[in-house]
Amino acid sequence: MQLSNHLQTDTGWEFYERTFDPEQIVTTGSNFMVGNGYMGYRGTFAEWDAEHYVACVVTDTWDTAEPGRLTELCNVPNPLYFQVRVNGETLSAFSGKTLAYERAMDLRCGLFSRRSTWQGRDGGPVTIEEEKFASYDDIHLLVMRYRLTVEEDAEISVLTGIDGRVWSISGEHFRSQEAHTLGDTADLIAMDVRTVEYDTLIRVAEDMTVQGSVPVHTTLRQVERRVLREMTFQLRAGDSLVFEKYASIQHSNGVTDPQAGAVATVERARNTGFDALLAAHRSCWERIWAVSDIQIEGDLESQLLARFNVFHNIIHTPSHARLPVGARGLSCQVYQGAAFWDQETFNLPMYLYTQPELARRILEYRYDTLDGARRKAERLGYQGAYYAWTSGKTGDELFPDFFFTDVLTGRPIRNHFNCWQIHISPDITYALWLYYEATGDWDFIERCGAEMAFEIARFLGSRVHLRVDLDRYELIRLLGPDEYHENVDNNAYTLYLSHFALDKALTLYRQMTERSPQRLTELRAAIDLTDQEVDYWQDILNRLYLPKPDSETLLIEQFDGFFNLEDITPDTLRERLIDPSEYWGWPNGIAVHAQVLKQADLLQLFALVDDFSPEVLRANYGYYEPRTEHGSSLSPSVHALIATKAGLQDEAWRYFKEAATIDLYSRSKKVMSGGSFLGGIHTAACGGIWQVIVRGFSGFEIHDNTLHFQPHLPTPWQRLRFPLTYRDNHLWVTLDDEGLVVEAQERNPGTVNVALDQRTLAVAPGKTVRLATV
Amino acid sequence: MQLSNHLQTDTGWEFYERTFDPEQIVTTGSNFMVGNGYMGYRGTFAEWDAEHYVACVVTDTWDTAEPGRLTELCNVPNPLYFQVRVNGETLSAFSGKTLAYERAMDLRCGLFSRRSTWQGRDGGPVTIEEEKFASYDDIHLLVMRYRLTVEEDAEISVLTGIDGRVWSISGEHFRSQEAHTLGDTADLIAMDVRTVEYDTLIRVAEDMTVQGSVPVHTTLRQVERRVLREMTFQLRAGDSLVFEKYASIQHSNGVTDPQAGAVATVERARNTGFDALLAAHRSCWERIWAVSDIQIEGDLESQLLARFNVFHNIIHTPSHARLPVGARGLSCQVYQGAAFWDQETFNLPMYLYTQPELARRILEYRYDTLDGARRKAERLGYQGAYYAWTSGKTGDELFPDFFFTDVLTGRPIRNHFNCWQIHISPDITYALWLYYEATGDWDFIERCGAEMAFEIARFLGSRVHLRVDLDRYELIRLLGPDEYHENVDNNAYTLYLSHFALDKALTLYRQMTERSPQRLTELRAAIDLTDQEVDYWQDILNRLYLPKPDSETLLIEQFDGFFNLEDITPDTLRERLIDPSEYWGWPNGIAVHAQVLKQADLLQLFALVDDFSPEVLRANYGYYEPRTEHGSSLSPSVHALIATKAGLQDEAWRYFKEAATIDLYSRSKKVMSGGSFLGGIHTAACGGIWQVIVRGFSGFEIHDNTLHFQPHLPTPWQRLRFPLTYRDNHLWVTLDDEGLVVEAQERNPGTVNVALDQRTLAVAPGKTVRLATV
Repeated sequence: MQLSNHLQTDTGWEFYERTFDPEQIVTTGSNFMVGNGYMGYRGTFAEWDAEHYVACVVTDTWDTAEPGRLTELCNVPNPLYFQVRVNGETLSAFSGKTLAYERAMDLRCGLFSRRSTWQGRDGGPVTIEEEKFASYDDIHLLVMRYRLTVEEDAEISVLTGIDGRVWSISGEHFRSQEAHTLGDTADLIAMDVRTVEYDTLIRVAEDMTVQGSVPVHTTLRQVERRVLREMTFQLRAGDSLVFEKYASIQHSNGVTDPQAGAVATVERARNTGFDALLAAHRSCWERIWAVSDIQIEGDLESQLLARFNVFHNIIHTPSHARLPVGARGLSCQVYQGAAFWDQETFNLPMYLYTQPELARRILEYRYDTLDGARRKAERLGYQGAYYAWTSGKTGDELFPDFFFTDVLTGRPIRNHFNCWQIHISPDITYALWLYYEATGDWDFIERCGAEMAFEIARFLGSRVHLRVDLDRYELIRLLGPDEYHENVDNNAYTLYLSHFALDKALTLYRQMTERSPQRLTELRAAIDLTDQEVDYWQDILNRLYLPKPDSETLLIEQFDGFFNLEDITPDTLRERLIDPSEYWGWPNGIAVHAQVLKQADLLQLFALVDDFSPEVLRANYGYYEPRTEHGSSLSPSVHALIATKAGLQDEAWRYFKEAATIDLYSRSKKVMSGGSFLGGIHTAACGGIWQVIVRGFSGFEIHDNTLHFQPHLPTPWQRLRFPLTYRDNHLWVTLDDEGLVVEAQERNPGTVNVALDQRTLAVAPGKTVRLATV
Repeated sequence: MQLSNHLQTDTGWEFYERTFDPEQIVTTGSNFMVGNGYMGYRGTFAEWDAEHYVACVVTDTWDTAEPGRLTELCNVPNPLYFQVRVNGETLSAFSGKTLAYERAMDLRCGLFSRRSTWQGRDGGPVTIEEEKFASYDDIHLLVMRYRLTVEEDAEISVLTGIDGRVWSISGEHFRSQEAHTLGDTADLIAMDVRTVEYDTLIRVAEDMTVQGSVPVHTTLRQVERRVLREMTFQLRAGDSLVFEKYASIQHSNGVTDPQAGAVATVERARNTGFDALLAAHRSCWERIWAVSDIQIEGDLESQLLARFNVFHNIIHTPSHARLPVGARGLSCQVYQGAAFWDQETFNLPMYLYTQPELARRILEYRYDTLDGARRKAERLGYQGAYYAWTSGKTGDELFPDFFFTDVLTGRPIRNHFNCWQIHISPDITYALWLYYEATGDWDFIERCGAEMAFEIARFLGSRVHLRVDLDRYELIRLLGPDEYHENVDNNAYTLYLSHFALDKALTLYRQMTERSPQRLTELRAAIDLTDQEVDYWQDILNRLYLPKPDSETLLIEQFDGFFNLEDITPDTLRERLIDPSEYWGWPNGIAVHAQVLKQADLLQLFALVDDFSPEVLRANYGYYEPRTEHGSSLSPSVHALIATKAGLQDEAWRYFKEAATIDLYSRSKKVMSGGSFLGGIHTAACGGIWQVIVRGFSGFEIHDNTLHFQPHLPTPWQRLRFPLTYRDNHLWVTLDDEGLVVEAQERNPGTVNVALDQRTLAVAPGKTVRLATV
């Protein structure tokens, strides 16, 4: 099936292109990337280098190159570097003639493949076949197979090894770089780098096998930050030579001896061989898809889009350690490989019901960074835990005071993401409560969750202000999800989420009193929590201002005074731009004094807090949607989700398509700006798509320990099928015109209640139940 | 004595220039102006018109030309228009040759005079002598004498009458303009205009006498918004002709029948004649100076500067009605003829001790506009009285949302003077308390003061926020006196003034309980005031956050986080300007993120609230003074005042000179900007000079019903002498090296306690006491 953007799919499990577009290497490099939550390797060609945004981004390698530069993950030296000269001419996608071409991504097992037939100035066509994957069976392992076939006799030379000439967005992260030749044979090579800030040692090791019937002459060379094998050989017409490269990247933040570890991994891999490694990797993916796949019948494009987004939500999420999901995942260094609120509100919900242990790890990461959040709160004059807007290793704030530059004046802009966007803290309580609901994991609450919820409530207690004359608590000077409006009061989203967070902190406090009094006593002592403070939370909860829908219009004002701002559409407003790349928001962008939203704000509230009628959703959707500019990739999926809940099917379908194709169809307007790389996978949108389908189109909600469904499938979809994990029970849910089918796994520990249109049935282990549409 | 800026003085009672600088007509037009609190007539030449900023600005004529334009006072038609042609050539300061020239201002009686000897292309020199004054004996009266003398025979023609071609900063204020010839003879002419917004009828009437021995042929003409007499005559060598013009401006906001009233005034004036009118006017000034003069021996320049500033503080202050003192007074339309906080904090203190009835009128004006302040509070979601930042007739806010324009982008800047600069309200309580202290006027408190103080306290009650966790009330999102920093929390100035205002509201409440229980009962009912609300004020008073001096550095932070801003001097900061006319403040001006102040802020606090030791003053002066850019004319006088109190004599002297010469030496950097007139008298600086001398150099303070002095006279001053009025007692105070002499008037109602260096004496009526310096 032909898709947009030169892409095709045959089964909905893969996508491929047969046209190479050199203008799109930033986005295709992301879309075709491989990854395993530990590392991401961009979907570039083996012959490329930094100039073409080849990158291998590795978790937990945060570094600040120099004071004032952004902290970010490292692009590590590239072990899959592979330069080919044919009859003295460098083989390149950008010169000579490409006679045939295909680049494909097999989502079923995260396998990249490329086949190019290239014709140089002299001699006949050369075909290269490249396959690579980042192993899920051994996360430190990156494997590539590279096959060369010639149609006429040819003199070939290959330069392959480790390329340390990495590109980096925010400065040079390596204070030192050392090449080594190691192992049983001199074929095993390595490069050790040490980072500037923490002196993290990163070892990239690589070994290679060559299969073929021609003699190969190999010499080792070190040139300009590369350690290379130079291999020369002659191929006869029809001959092939196959190179298999086994690379491992290990660093001192993740393992105790990265040097020995990387060598051992590479040696083990070389001894195992490409095919066996791929088989083991494929088995891992089978297990992942068994709990994560979304199956759509009736629209192959939707099927592929669903899998593409789920796949990316998976490969960017560290499953091996308590580490964050980056806003661009491991697709590049943009957004610093750091967690934002997206992690809890966009990425995490999918894990709750597919791989809850990943959800737990994400929340444990937030527990590990609680001290960072405490430091941030203290620094800003608050108490408790004020989580970083941009959170890396320690949880200390990575977002700089001055982020954007005013293109009209060249002056830096003081944004307040790092000090006024307080909803990040209650967003985390939201996520931990969802996790607790989906898993019933009291152990987590005892160990981590209660303390986090208490410290977040404590933060809110120091952040609210009481308007004595109005007898209400308020939240002043906020930056809500709509980031074009900084410095607002009583942002509805923030108020409701804060209310939620206080409510859950108090609920957990009461549950701790009953279920874990000893731990509560310890915790109270550890964090100096008094009855008086808990009473204070209750008082805030009772009197926190919650803007209600207007009795006539049903509208909720996004923040105090929003309705008094200039009422203008985003398109008309856009005409006021002096420079198309102007920032629209604070302090004096064109949207600041207008009712124009960067992204969903009230709708975002509805996506999280389930207190509002469909009529309220519809009224507010009708008001805010035309005023939303969607300057954030977070916006379309929320619109799709709320549209399903508001009964606006056409809108839901339109925004689903928009959200699902942000990356695959390269819809993101800016991938490069002023020479800066801004590409990468919008991981939140990926997580959002799961929510649109499972929470939106299938109408999945949990109330009273029952899984409710209220499907509104898009017209082209004949059937929707997906697995759910709920409190250790594994289910497959099928929805179609006829109704709901739920299949429970034999080994489920218990019975699960499911409901369609409020009619409830219990599903016992190994059983299948059907509920027909009325 | 030669002064700066081409000026001279002989006695300290007058200043004059003998060099005409056409580049300076904006400022000299203000410096040489005449006025009487009802009207201001700029010190321009009779031959000039709108092009040269001739203007007659009249109180209480506020008008908005069209929606979106600024409300401002009208420049009324000019009745002193006087064009002269000599042998067919127009006499002009800008063409021909000026052989001799003097322009003088006699401050003793507010008399403008000019003498020019002009040489045209043909014929001999012509000398013109022009004198004018705005009568204090009859505020509606403006009088001019114009004498023409020729040295050779000449053919003269004169065009004189009323020129309706006025200039206006914010649009055309006259919807209609009608010329009339009236009176006993056709010589009396008038022009009636009606304003756009309120249809105010303004009549300008004028009559003239001609004295001389030559026949004059006169015809009446109406041309292009002028009603004119064309007069032709021949003068012989040595002949003079004297024209006396009597003009009256009356309007329907001030009198019931402005048409008849203006005619009657003019006729009466013409019958009285110039000399007698001047004598009556002079008597008024004698009475004014008897209670207001400042006499300095030892430095003639200081003497003149003191009188110049006191004079201007007087002539711009309406003494005939409850109307505000404009920030540029009646010198032009700039700042809309409206009251700002300057009125209470800079202009009013002089009146308290010189003409307390003027201070009362100013405060009664605030009482009259209480409803406007209530409307503003309500509109912004508060209670009580939130006074307008820019206050005209009704007290409704005249300051627009968008005032400045960003010169770099051409976009309007949303400033928040009109919503965050809340200190205006407590500033008014400050002034009314000072008035009450200086006069003991309980009647005023009963009628107006208590209600104002209560409504201001009520406003503060709705503006504070309680930080429950810190157990303190805070004031969030402020704009303090330092206007480069909008949107700050806990500005110390605003907190202390609010504390003061709450304290005085409670004090007045208690006094009302005792002294005027009946009126209190009525007032409580009228404004719906409960015991609970009064208790709430007490609670705020008890728990309002007041930033204290640091125990080591003695510094008080100007607002939360000020000390964390970039520490840079104003001069270094200035180098970052892209355009020299950039606004430095909100939202993204160069000072926003720097420790650079527009004007005194902490020092301003010290000028009003007397709670701090000289050591604290000195420490904070040392810190803040080098960081102050003095972008406001309010700043230097406060620096001088605090320097005296901090014992920094050199600084005091430097800033006194700076503050006192802002207008006279044309030190204001911008009088025209982008073609807009920004000139005018800085009336607050004028009022500030009185405070520097009387409160600062003489160390005058009132404690315990005793007038304390602690003089620190500038080195050149041998003696300082000034009158004080205190609770109906009139005193003359003399300070010199030997000590203090206080002379009490015979008709004083009581004894006054005076103190030098804490030694106290009582001064009975008619007595003189001496206290020697120890």
